[in-house]
Amino acid sequence: MTGEWTVNPNELIRKKRDGGALTRDELREFISAYVSGTVPDYQMSSFLMAVYFRGMTADERLALTEVMLHSGMIIDLSAIPGIKVDKHSTGGVGDKVSLILAPMVAACGVPVPMISGRGLGHTGGTLDKLESIPGFKTSLAIEDYRKVIAATGLVMIGQTAEIAPADKRMYALRDVTATVESIPLIAGSIMSKKLAEGIDALVLDIKTGNGAFMQRYEDSVELASALVGIGRQFGKNTVGLITEMDQPLGFRIGNWCEVVESVECLRGKQVPDLMEVTYALGALMLLVGKKVESIPAGIRMGEEAIWSGRAYEKFLDLVRFQGGDPAVIETPSRVPPPEFTFEVKADRDGYATAFATRDIGVLAAEMGAGRMKVDDDLDMFAGITLRKKLGDRVQAGEIVATMYGADRGKVEAASRRYLPMMTISDAPALMPKRIRALVDQTGVKAWDPLGDVIF
Amino acid sequence: MTGEWTVNPNELIRKKRDGGALTRDELREFISAYVSGTVPDYQMSSFLMAVYFRGMTADERLALTEVMLHSGMIIDLSAIPGIKVDKHSTGGVGDKVSLILAPMVAACGVPVPMISGRGLGHTGGTLDKLESIPGFKTSLAIEDYRKVIAATGLVMIGQTAEIAPADKRMYALRDVTATVESIPLIAGSIMSKKLAEGIDALVLDIKTGNGAFMQRYEDSVELASALVGIGRQFGKNTVGLITEMDQPLGFRIGNWCEVVESVECLRGKQVPDLMEVTYALGALMLLVGKKVESIPAGIRMGEEAIWSGRAYEKFLDLVRFQGGDPAVIETPSRVPPPEFTFEVKADRDGYATAFATRDIGVLAAEMGAGRMKVDDDLDMFAGITLRKKLGDRVQAGEIVATMYGADRGKVEAASRRYLPMMTISDAPALMPKRIRALVDQTGVKAWDPLGDVIF
Repeated sequence: MTGEWTVNPNELIRKKRDGGALTRDELREFISAYVSGTVPDYQMSSFLMAVYFRGMTADERLALTEVMLHSGMIIDLSAIPGIKVDKHSTGGVGDKVSLILAPMVAACGVPVPMISGRGLGHTGGTLDKLESIPGFKTSLAIEDYRKVIAATGLVMIGQTAEIAPADKRMYALRDVTATVESIPLIAGSIMSKKLAEGIDALVLDIKTGNGAFMQRYEDSVELASALVGIGRQFGKNTVGLITEMDQPLGFRIGNWCEVVESVECLRGKQVPDLMEVTYALGALMLLVGKKVESIPAGIRMGEEAIWSGRAYEKFLDLVRFQGGDPAVIETPSRVPPPEFTFEVKADRDGYATAFATRDIGVLAAEMGAGRMKVDDDLDMFAGITLRKKLGDRVQAGEIVATMYGADRGKVEAASRRYLPMMTISDAPALMPKRIRALVDQTGVKAWDPLGDVIF
Repeated sequence: MTGEWTVNPNELIRKKRDGGALTRDELREFISAYVSGTVPDYQMSSFLMAVYFRGMTADERLALTEVMLHSGMIIDLSAIPGIKVDKHSTGGVGDKVSLILAPMVAACGVPVPMISGRGLGHTGGTLDKLESIPGFKTSLAIEDYRKVIAATGLVMIGQTAEIAPADKRMYALRDVTATVESIPLIAGSIMSKKLAEGIDALVLDIKTGNGAFMQRYEDSVELASALVGIGRQFGKNTVGLITEMDQPLGFRIGNWCEVVESVECLRGKQVPDLMEVTYALGALMLLVGKKVESIPAGIRMGEEAIWSGRAYEKFLDLVRFQGGDPAVIETPSRVPPPEFTFEVKADRDGYATAFATRDIGVLAAEMGAGRMKVDDDLDMFAGITLRKKLGDRVQAGEIVATMYGADRGKVEAASRRYLPMMTISDAPALMPKRIRALVDQTGVKAWDPLGDVIF
């Protein structure tokens, strides 16, 4: 920025405020000037609030993503053979899918380069979970990122300073100006980071329901469509599933305990909701990675990778290559159990018919499993094990959850707050569909695990 | 602020964003923290944009005004006998009413303490006009402000640092974040400054139409109602008129030339639209100042102050007391004429049926009569004299306006742009009502200069 504006920043904010659409040049100029420091935070934050209320057209979303993407480096993985595919989840409670899915898909021959985030608020983060494995390094230099994926077909690291620095600054600002929950801003933030990873295709897991970031189904569909649209316009095959987050996924919530549950699943344990979502996303990754030609074939290939032990071996490879201790993965009982454990018992007979999923996520975070502020310390061994999930029969006095961690006071306090977050009713409720819909470039369609999908 | 928040600023912004109403304590804490520097500009600007979209309840407007008012000093004029009454206009083109009205009302025995602003954008400012009088000082210390009103019953100064500093900071921020045009924010800004002046009652001139800040009549009514409501809740008798700004007021636009036109009116010249508005506002000031008991009596008393020369004498007193040169007021021709003058001629026969009033205001500002940015320099002698106003018969080749100033290029350029800003039609159009409505605590009512009004 040389101080020579084609349009005044105040006029750009006004244009968006009044419902107008900014041109690509206007958005590029505005955001570049923000990154270079010519546009101050206070103009960006009022712009972001105007976007919150007015939204963005598809062209604006594309331009926003493009400017944020090009504010940093785009990793070149063209030397790695194969169609590189990543999966991104909008986040949920107990969402450990990446830990099982990435090695499973990599074991089938599709390279998976994955850059993940930390947990914040009620949701966990893949990065925190990986870091609960003793020695596991999530901050690799870009060169090492390339080496690990070249060697194993799989790499899982954290956000680096080189990637989408504009998004980093804008996200930090949104976080303190109540402008996080805006679909175009979320879409731009996700896609600018994903497109920088060196991927050729992307599969999205858009959570919906009371434990999701987007609680309303229509908002989840809108976000999915925005993400798919942006991905396609950048020439990346992008598809998404809208999956239910009306109860925690799997049985465990926490960092180390989710690694343990993931390892169990990699070794063949059937955790129904968790594995249904994992196999479905895996089928899509194998489909866009051109390893299969139909969803049923993709699901079968994923299952074979698990049953054969290849997915588990791939995970052990990843742990070794990123400095982790494979011995604790082979024998999780080497890790001492949490210091304090409290059990929560049902106060009546009935059926589990609802979970206040977001509240349960916050509860786990408050025990030390997550962060309410970015600089909160984690207790890697704190967490919750659900003993009852949606549809389960419950008897008065029966244990419905176990809460554990290193801070006795926090764990005990949390254990006293758990029961009201679970609804026990006389009659069982209709079970939600775990996979609500498939979103691709042609729109939103029913998910059919037996059907053929042409992309 | 000690850093101990009852509520997180981000949560307050979110609450407003989601359509909630903040409590008085929340608003007080948020704005106080902003003034003290604990809440940064970027949180305030996103809050202001959320207010732009969501509005504020009457309680919130009151709390906002109160916090901004108490961020500075409230001038105590209780030692001055009489009911002190000020008038505030939301600003227009050629709006020189204060220069005639204030001395007229003061001459009737109602003390008028007036703190005015500078012109910005298409509107002029009373302060700039006064400063075109050689020697006239608009920045008096509060002590001198008290002395002048005690001596003459009239004082006209500019904003001081002691008054509503929170508003000053917030206004500067709004100006660069596209959050100026918000009725609750405008209302809080106006009232926090007016309530600090030491007034007992306030009369408002809310402009409406294409030269007004609020162009739509409904917005003007909403603003008027907000202002009247706040004034009343602070125990100040507050009433307002909604007046038409669909053409410049009077014949002249500029600084010195508007002083000259005002002096002519003070000496008895009848400029119909200008004096109709002035007498109406004067009647209201005399009514709330308890000098008359009806509007017709107030209009009569104002007219007598003009005809008798007492209003003109009061203005001369003011000029003398504030350091100005009364000789140029007595004999305006002592000021040399503008260096460059260009005439604009009609290109067809017909009737003047519309003016692009805002554009004409911007044109005058661009010639040097006003500011497009706060630090623009003024040409005190630049301006426009309209020779034709709404309803006037126009012949092709006849002079419709004269443009003048010190910058030949600017004046000539402006003179070429004037004609399209005036619509000349074959048939005369219906003339707008100059005074659209009266707004008091009971609501909006028709203005009736012959009627009785009980406040």
